[in-house]
Order: sequence, then C-alpha cells, then structure tokens
Amino acid sequence: MQKSFTVSGYLVHRLQEIGVNHLFGVPGDYNLDFLDDVMISPIRWVGNCNELNAGYAADGYARLNGIGAAVVTYGVGGMSILNAVAGAYAEHVPMIVINGAPAARRRESEAMVHHLVAHYYLQLEIFKKITADAAMLTDPFTAPNEIDRVLRSCLTSKLPVYIELPCDIVRASCKAPVKALTVTSAVSNLDSLAEAVKEAAGLLQTAANPIILAGIELLRFKLGSETLRLVESSEIPFATMLGSKSVLPELHPQFTGIYQGGWSKKHVQAQVEESDCLLSLGAWMTDLDTGLFSINLDKRHMIEVGQGKVRIGGHFYPQVELSDFIRELTSQVQPRSYLTSHPALSYQPKQPFIPRPACELTATRLYDCLNYYLDDQMVLLSEPGDAFCATPEFHIEEAENFIVQSYYCSIGFCTPAALGVSLARPGKRPVILTGDGAFQMTAQELSTLIRERCPAIFVLVNNDGYLIERKLHQDGAYNNLQMWRYASLPEAFGGSSFATGIHVTTEEELNDAFKLALSEPGRLIFIEAFLPKRDCSRGLERLGESFRKSQQK
Amino acid sequence: MQKSFTVSGYLVHRLQEIGVNHLFGVPGDYNLDFLDDVMISPIRWVGNCNELNAGYAADGYARLNGIGAAVVTYGVGGMSILNAVAGAYAEHVPMIVINGAPAARRRESEAMVHHLVAHYYLQLEIFKKITADAAMLTDPFTAPNEIDRVLRSCLTSKLPVYIELPCDIVRASCKAPVKALTVTSAVSNLDSLAEAVKEAAGLLQTAANPIILAGIELLRFKLGSETLRLVESSEIPFATMLGSKSVLPELHPQFTGIYQGGWSKKHVQAQVEESDCLLSLGAWMTDLDTGLFSINLDKRHMIEVGQGKVRIGGHFYPQVELSDFIRELTSQVQPRSYLTSHPALSYQPKQPFIPRPACELTATRLYDCLNYYLDDQMVLLSEPGDAFCATPEFHIEEAENFIVQSYYCSIGFCTPAALGVSLARPGKRPVILTGDGAFQMTAQELSTLIRERCPAIFVLVNNDGYLIERKLHQDGAYNNLQMWRYASLPEAFGGSSFATGIHVTTEEELNDAFKLALSEPGRLIFIEAFLPKRDCSRGLERLGESFRKSQQK
Repeated sequence: MQKSFTVSGYLVHRLQEIGVNHLFGVPGDYNLDFLDDVMISPIRWVGNCNELNAGYAADGYARLNGIGAAVVTYGVGGMSILNAVAGAYAEHVPMIVINGAPAARRRESEAMVHHLVAHYYLQLEIFKKITADAAMLTDPFTAPNEIDRVLRSCLTSKLPVYIELPCDIVRASCKAPVKALTVTSAVSNLDSLAEAVKEAAGLLQTAANPIILAGIELLRFKLGSETLRLVESSEIPFATMLGSKSVLPELHPQFTGIYQGGWSKKHVQAQVEESDCLLSLGAWMTDLDTGLFSINLDKRHMIEVGQGKVRIGGHFYPQVELSDFIRELTSQVQPRSYLTSHPALSYQPKQPFIPRPACELTATRLYDCLNYYLDDQMVLLSEPGDAFCATPEFHIEEAENFIVQSYYCSIGFCTPAALGVSLARPGKRPVILTGDGAFQMTAQELSTLIRERCPAIFVLVNNDGYLIERKLHQDGAYNNLQMWRYASLPEAFGGSSFATGIHVTTEEELNDAFKLALSEPGRLIFIEAFLPKRDCSRGLERLGESFRKSQQK
Repeated sequence: MQKSFTVSGYLVHRLQEIGVNHLFGVPGDYNLDFLDDVMISPIRWVGNCNELNAGYAADGYARLNGIGAAVVTYGVGGMSILNAVAGAYAEHVPMIVINGAPAARRRESEAMVHHLVAHYYLQLEIFKKITADAAMLTDPFTAPNEIDRVLRSCLTSKLPVYIELPCDIVRASCKAPVKALTVTSAVSNLDSLAEAVKEAAGLLQTAANPIILAGIELLRFKLGSETLRLVESSEIPFATMLGSKSVLPELHPQFTGIYQGGWSKKHVQAQVEESDCLLSLGAWMTDLDTGLFSINLDKRHMIEVGQGKVRIGGHFYPQVELSDFIRELTSQVQPRSYLTSHPALSYQPKQPFIPRPACELTATRLYDCLNYYLDDQMVLLSEPGDAFCATPEFHIEEAENFIVQSYYCSIGFCTPAALGVSLARPGKRPVILTGDGAFQMTAQELSTLIRERCPAIFVLVNNDGYLIERKLHQDGAYNNLQMWRYASLPEAFGGSSFATGIHVTTEEELNDAFKLALSEPGRLIFIEAFLPKRDCSRGLERLGESFRKSQQK
C-alpha cells in the first residue's frame, strides 16, 4: 500500500534522496513540527549557535557533499542567514534554506505574530534576489511539485534555493513521491558546440605557447577529472587561480602556478600573459583573483569558456556547456609534446620545517610550517585576510582539500564552514587558517565543532587587529580588537576532554603544537599563534604593492 | 570663510548634530575613508565583533538616546546586519545604517569586485523594504539633500533608514550644511482631532469603569510624561503591556498591572476586559503581548489611538497624532475621583530576598532575587524566552530602565544591546537577563562590553537548552545545546582585571553574587545561574497553559 505523506515527510524524503545527510540550523517555534520529522528520519540534525553560522556550515558541507541545507525560523532566522546565502549565491554553492513560517491561515488577518516584519511576502521577496529559485508552500496540493522544482533548480544551477514552510502546512497530507527526482543538466547546442570545439582545437594546435587557465567553475561543477584528461591529452601547461586552487594537482609536471595578474609570481604571470593562445575554462576575473584587476590579457588570444558560452577573440558561440566543451575538445586535441620540450615549471616538493631554537615566530615561518604539515588527509580552509594571501604558496594536491571564499570574502566563514566540511568528509581533518578579527565574528561555532567531535586543527593568527586593513590603508584605531585569550576558548566551550588550546610564540612551540596535532588525530587542536602586529605573508606584501599601484592610477 | 565639506564630512556633521555620539560597526575596506573622518570627529567609534551585533548595539543605544547608527561594509556587512535592522523596523526604533560601497565609477563596468552579490542595487532594494527611507549616494551634488531627507525621515518616523556611501564619493566635495536639520512631526487635522477628543472625553466621563491601556508607541515616541499627566488629570486607572512595561511608573496608585490577555493576572484581565470604556494609547496587539491572542476585548467599548488615527467603536478619525490627542484630551478630561472610590490594585512594594541556606536555586527564586536587587540605577534587558516571561513580575519605575524586544523577539539581542544601553546612559548599569541559547547567539559581544568598560551585570540562566521550546512543544533533541563553561568567558574574552564570572547553583551563592555586584559598581559581573532543565518562571507556566488552549481550538 502507498505510504501516506505529509508535506514535511515529502520534503524530508527528497532531501535524503538528493544527498542531504546532515541538516544545519537553529530550532524556532515555527519550524519545530518539521524538525520533529527530521529527528525520526535518517537525516542527522546538527544545531548551530546562530543562523549565520548554520548557513556557513551548510555552505562548507555543500562544497564537498554536492548539496547542503539549513533550517531556520521565520524573520529572526531568515534575516540572520541572509549573508551566508548571499555568499553561496556569489560563489555558486548549492544550498537549500528551509524557513519555518507562521500559519498560512493567519495571513488573511492582520495579526501581529512574533518575528513578523513588514509583511508576509518580505522574506520570499528578499530570498528570490539571491537564490536560483524560491517557493512559499501554502497549498499541500501543489507543494510536492514546488519542492521538486526548487530542489531541481538547486542541483542544476549549483546555486542556493529557498523554501518557506508555514507551520500549518507541515503536517498537511500530500501526494507521495512517485519516482526519483530527475535532474537534467543544461544542454549544449550541438552545432554551436562542434564549431566552437573545432575552432579552439585548431588554435591550440597551431599556437606556439598555449596555456590552460583552470577556473572556479571547474570546481563548482566538479569537472576536475575531466579537465585533467584534457590537460594530459593535450600536454598543454596549465595555471589555476586562487578561487580554483588545487582543482588540478599542484605537483603535476604541467602545472605552472597560480595566476593572479600582477599579484602572481613573475614566471606565472609571464607564461599566462605572453601566451598566444590562452584557454580559459570557467575562470572568474574577480578583483582579488587578479591582484586588483592588474591583469594584462589580450582578448584576441583568448578562448573563454564558461557561463554557458564560448568566446574566441571577438565572436562567441552561445549555448555551449563547459562540461560538453571539455569532453569534446579532449577527444579532438592532439598532444603538444609539451613535456619533452619544456623544463618543469611546477612547484618544488615542499621543504621540511626545521624550527630554529628560541626563535620568535614570524608570519612567513608560520605559513612555511603549516605548508609542511598539510597532508592529503587534511582540508585547508583559508579565511579572507592574510590567510588567504598566504595560501597560494601552499601545496595542495586534491580539489577537495582546499576551501576558500575567494570572491565574496566574508570573514568568519571558515570556523562554521569547517563544521560542514568535517561532517561531509569524516575521514578528513579540517585545518582552519584564520585571523583574530575573522575568528571573533563567528567564534561560538567552535563549540559546535567540539560537540560534534570534529578533529579540526585551528591555526589562529593573533596579530592584534584587522591586519589586511592595517597594511592596505592608514592604520586607524578602528583596526584594534579586544585581545582575547583565544587558547582558553576550547575549554570555555566545554571541550576539556576533547579539545586542547595552545598559545605559541616561537617556532619550536608551533612545531611542537603541530606534532601534538598529528599525534592526536582524533582530537581538536586549537593553536593560537602570536605574531608581531604588522607582520604578514609574502602574498600580502605583494598585494600591498598592487594596491598602491592601483591607487596611483 | 565657509568651511569646505566632503560628503563624508557632511554626514559626520549631521550625525553629530542629531545626537549620534557613538557609532557602532565593523571596519571594511569600502568604509575606511569614512571611518578616518569619524575618528577625527567628536563621534566615538565603537567597533563590534560582527555586524549583527553592531546593529543590536545601535538599536539598544537608539532606544535610550533617541537615535543610533551603525557602519558596515558592502555585501558581507550589509547582509549581516539585516536582522537587526528588521528588528528595529518591526519594533519602531530609529537607527541609521551606513554602508560603505564599491566605487560608483566601477558600476558602469561588469567588474567582479569582492563582496558584490547579484548586482549593485541589491542592497538598496533590500534595505528599502525594511527602512523608512534609503539612499545610495552616487552624486556629491545631490548627496547633502539626500542625507538630510533620510535622516529627517529617521527622526520623524522613529524607524531605521539606510545610506549607501560608495568609496569614491566619500571624499568628493559638496556643499556645506547651511542650517540645522529641521524636523517637522506629522500634523493632526485640527477638526478631526477636536471631534475625536470631544467624543472620547464624553465617553470617559460617563463610563462606569474606564481604563487606560498604555501601549508601546508611548515608549517609542517618548510620550510617557504626557501620558502620566493625562492619567493623573483624569484619575482613570491604567494598565501597561509587556512591550510598554514601565512606560508609566509601576508603583503609581492608579496602576492596575500588565495586561496580556489570558496570560494576565486575573484581576488585571478582569479590569481591562470588563471595562465599559477602554482607552488604548499606542498599543499593539501582538501574539506574545496578548497571551497568544487570548484577548477578549469588545471593540464597541474601545477608543483606540495610534498609527496616526483614532478609532471609536466602528468609526474612525483620520490624521490624529497620538501626542496631540493625549495633550488635548488632558486639557478636557475631568477627574474621576478614582483614587477615593477604588482600593489600590497596584503592585506591592518588593519583598526582600532572604536566601535559604544550602537551598538549590529554582527559576522562581532566581527571578525573586533579581527583582529584589533591581534598582533605579539599573536598566534591565530581558531576552525573549523565559526571561521575557518572568519580566512582568519585576517592579520597574522608569521607562528608560527596561528594554525588551517583545514583538520581533530575536534571541541574542540583549548582550549587544546592553553595549548600546551602557554607552547611551553611562550613569546606569545594564542588567542582562538572558538564557543559554540566546547568549550563545551573540556571546562574543561580551568582549566589547569588557573593552568598553561597561559595568554590566549578566544573569545567564543555564538550563541546558532552549527552555521555551522544551515547555511549549515536545522536547526534541534539537533543544540541546553544547554545555559551555559560561562563567569562564569574561576571563577568556580578556576581562581579567575588569570582569568576574561566577557560577551559582544555590540561593546563597546567587545572593552573594548580587551583593558582590552591588559592592563593585564599576565592574562587570557575569552570573551563570545553573537551574534544573525544565524549571521555569510562573509566567512561562501560564504561557504554556494559554498555548495548549490555543492549540485545542
């Protein structure tokens, strides 16, 4: 006999089907009936300290798991999670927001129910602006189709979506899901595709020094291995960008380095900008990914693929999907014998970190040490700020081992996102490289990492203020922060048996802290690294130079 | 000679002129030029850990100071403060949000600058929905008029407003302010006013048992003393509501109590609902202010004044302002000699709290103790949750000594709001009554209270979870929280020399903690009161009964 379904049961069923195994969020009276159904489902509820943090956690989870979701309550929760949703929208992350709402039947009156602001359509209207699709479920008859449409849109577009669930609809009966949710990707126009691939293959074949720039969309649409096949079939060298770092392996012999415009290392900048045929795959030319637009690329020598089209020089081919283009080009391109004709330009294997006795820690040495200890069982989360600037120098081999918000750049993202990362990849260890200013934004979510027994390694750079602002602008007193005793927080957040906080000021102490972390793979180790106030990474020094140049223009 | 002005200087000048003496917020690269100007002005910059907290702080500040303001940066900051702005909009609090934005000249290109999401008008569009007025300053020629219009709107409407300040406009020259900003309040139609007052005075005169219900708008438009004159001239008894608690003195002989529908004390409910002439002044009938709409008021016996009109029975008088109505009615109403004909129904003077030796603390005793120690130099901030439910029983004499978000009910509001309260009223001491779930939302702002040397008293009720949800719904595991060592946070947040955390479990320990707080008026005392898991105030028990009744309907 057909199992009878409620709207809530239908939604839980679909979430589970599409791979939502953990649900983040905060309970509130308008979502409790829905949460009751979640609790008896195989989906694991992971409560957060607040809704913004829940959103970041769902984002981090979605980046590795392919889909993530958060549940909030009306008004206070819906408005609090918006920044995380905006970040997911800007960065192309598929996240579902489920907002428990006041009863649909109340809406006909002018009743002033708590958490209501302005009018009943406010949140739907706002979420529509920063999601691929949004629905307010007010009719159990249409709810299943609306749920399916919105979830399909999330999976296809890799963008956030929004579902508003009034509390008197949750338990209403609705039809059962008849078959699995089908998701059809966007389809290329075959003529356009064939013509674009033919032209591109010809250009790459005849170019003297072609190069592939592997961009962020390859990460978001999980096209890393397809791109690696293209790279290896063609034997063309490749660069990545900060937002797409490690989408292809960094110890690969064809890897040139990370392209960041004038912020790049010189040989990378030269190889990319002097190429007579640059194949750009899903790259975004954002300000921070291009050293503040300090790029010098000649459109006439570029093949740009992404956002559903191909542009070659001054003409473009519409309706060509990135995945189709890569697959077809791989089958047509001839090897260039790059490997035999060029010296290896790739990174050197990483250097061992040997702490100098009684030597005060500096930023450069901190990052060298972290780079040395990173391994392929760790996922590095790099916070916008100096962490972000230091990151290009780290060697990371797998796409899934690096998380950064390189475009939206919301500081405070990494601590809650690490929770999502840890639950999505329980076999791996999140390493959070964050600054004091960023950490203060969302610090309480450390307590959820402790509660969920996530064996994270925190590297908190305590340099007494907002460092990147000190370096790029005159150093106003607004960059000062209250000095916390960061290393005591794991204990304060109830982590005594599971988490250890360590304050380090020398190279030896830092090295010992990492050794402890490696010897205790099941525990959370929180390293507070104390640095001089204006000391920073080589990357931030170079960004400062780019910035001063851009200001002089 | 005329001083030359920049847009930034103009804005700083106007902010100062209208009483913004402290500016809350978070620095970010798009707002740094503006902040540089703030730092050399008499306005004091008060940085916060994150933008939501900055918004709450500005809200708390505005409630006492009459105006408050917060500065954020584009995208990440603008989207993060929205919940605080929505709360201010719902609760009628005049708050200015200044959002530093990318250069106006960039907007013609499609440049992907960091923190940008969707398009350049997104934030303006969203803020327009939850503010009285909003402006994006893209032209230094029109900027002064736009600033004036928006600030005037904030002061008149007592609602939040929004100013977006692109970073290339900040330093552009503009005209100087020629004269002080004039603010004209809304004007009543004199005929409508006279007729309404005449009818109301007649009804009150002939009624057998009239009563005044003093509502939240009296607080927001600061009409407490005018209303007290009306009350005393007319000698009519009055009730308040939770949202307007203490707008009139609670030890006043005409005070009946706090009306909350079926959630009220019986004698208050009877006196309000059985009145043959209820004069309702600026009251909002929200769900939590009416015991979940368990009110039984006969519109035919009501005179409702507020939102610019007067309604008597089935007819209404448009364009009548609350302040005008109160003033005119006061001059026309005759005393009822209520005082001589009725027994005093007001609260009894508060009872001393005598701790019972070795007696485990209960919720009821905790609230009794707090009530006893509250004095007229303290401002109580009561968090939505059990704190909120316990509050009607506290005796508070001055309107400015009590802060609650009784309608929007965003948990986590009180800790940051206390920062604003403390800076707005440095002579007074904020007392934050909060729960563990609420405190975890915004806990880090405790560190800003410490940095700013605010001598707050925290009473954190640690009952291991979201209590109000445990009581009103089945007790799902989603109500569990990570158990923090709350009393250690003042130390962890760098408060060692200024702040003390105390964990109490017995009546004596609680009493000693309050005595310590009183003996140390210049320090921050953080009391973590440990309570049994489901123990709660009498108010929440009564709310539970209302809730079960409302569900049976």
